[in-house]
Amino acid sequence: MGGDVIDFYFDFASPYAYLAAGRVDGLSQRVGRPVRWRPILLGAVFKISGGQPNLNKPLQGDYLRLDVPRCARLWEIPLHQPLPSPFPSLAASRAFYWLDQVGGEHSPAALARAVFQAHWAEGRDMALPENVLDVAASLGLERDAVEAGIAQSQVKDRLRAETEAAIARGVFGAPFFFIGHEPFWGADRMDQMEDWLQRGGW
Amino acid sequence: MGGDVIDFYFDFASPYAYLAAGRVDGLSQRVGRPVRWRPILLGAVFKISGGQPNLNKPLQGDYLRLDVPRCARLWEIPLHQPLPSPFPSLAASRAFYWLDQVGGEHSPAALARAVFQAHWAEGRDMALPENVLDVAASLGLERDAVEAGIAQSQVKDRLRAETEAAIARGVFGAPFFFIGHEPFWGADRMDQMEDWLQRGGW
Repeated sequence: MGGDVIDFYFDFASPYAYLAAGRVDGLSQRVGRPVRWRPILLGAVFKISGGQPNLNKPLQGDYLRLDVPRCARLWEIPLHQPLPSPFPSLAASRAFYWLDQVGGEHSPAALARAVFQAHWAEGRDMALPENVLDVAASLGLERDAVEAGIAQSQVKDRLRAETEAAIARGVFGAPFFFIGHEPFWGADRMDQMEDWLQRGGW
Repeated sequence: MGGDVIDFYFDFASPYAYLAAGRVDGLSQRVGRPVRWRPILLGAVFKISGGQPNLNKPLQGDYLRLDVPRCARLWEIPLHQPLPSPFPSLAASRAFYWLDQVGGEHSPAALARAVFQAHWAEGRDMALPENVLDVAASLGLERDAVEAGIAQSQVKDRLRAETEAAIARGVFGAPFFFIGHEPFWGADRMDQMEDWLQRGGW
């Protein structure tokens, strides 16, 4: 079954990653496995895989504006209407890894949940670093420390390295999960992932 | 809610269309709506939408060889191992529309189910017209009549016209469903479609 962790790769910019984030804690509890949250830059993935954001595809983009709200309703996940746009997620992703690096009482996953919620449920634009700082501050983090943290070159390098590691592992979209060597792609594969685990793998 | 029929667009060549075909009759019964089966040529759709068969994509192709069997197991649908290849589905699709045209006691949907089953569950290559004729004969159809039927220019035209009509309606992949104006894409959206119907639409 390959390790006991669920690796959860996502880009804050993806509405399907937001939906997955809303389902992953429940899944984790039911299957008794911790989740390792890993924000990545989907743009870098697409440069390798030849993919592109679904919202930019002529027919799929329109479809997505129906599918995402239907998924949210089915899975009982709050969603802002009209659907917020994908956004450059650099600041949010760097804040995540800065927090991961400094350790302490604040959980990077809690920050990730809050950023997702602010953008996709509340419609606050997380492209803007000051909005990310607001979210961090609302969790009790020191705003100035986060601001300095996301400017550190080692934090920027970490995000790049995590993205490259994900690509090397075979991630070609988001949300993307690994349980050991077994890949699962999409918020809509979480039921399958649970089924797979409950059967003990293949 | 837009009409009372579930329009089901598929290419016999798609493993996900096969999985959808294995789920659509149950869905139809539960929601009390008939299914209109519509084989199309996905290659023509991709020429317009810029898509390509997932199996041909470098990373997604490998992923699909894991995902299709996992879906089949989750949905309890028989699947040949190793996974059969997609195939040129001209003969099968033409046989479907020939049968649709001549009417009579034999159901085109029954032929579609049998072709899907032969290729994806039994591993019989439905690219070959003679194998399609065998399947038709096993349902009690006259082999010679089917052979002559799939060579008719009006049958060939019908398949082309159905594919063009699907594209005009917004179909950009397969399996693809419409309930009135509401599009649903993928075997993995059938739960969502059922949920959507049970809620009475939006």
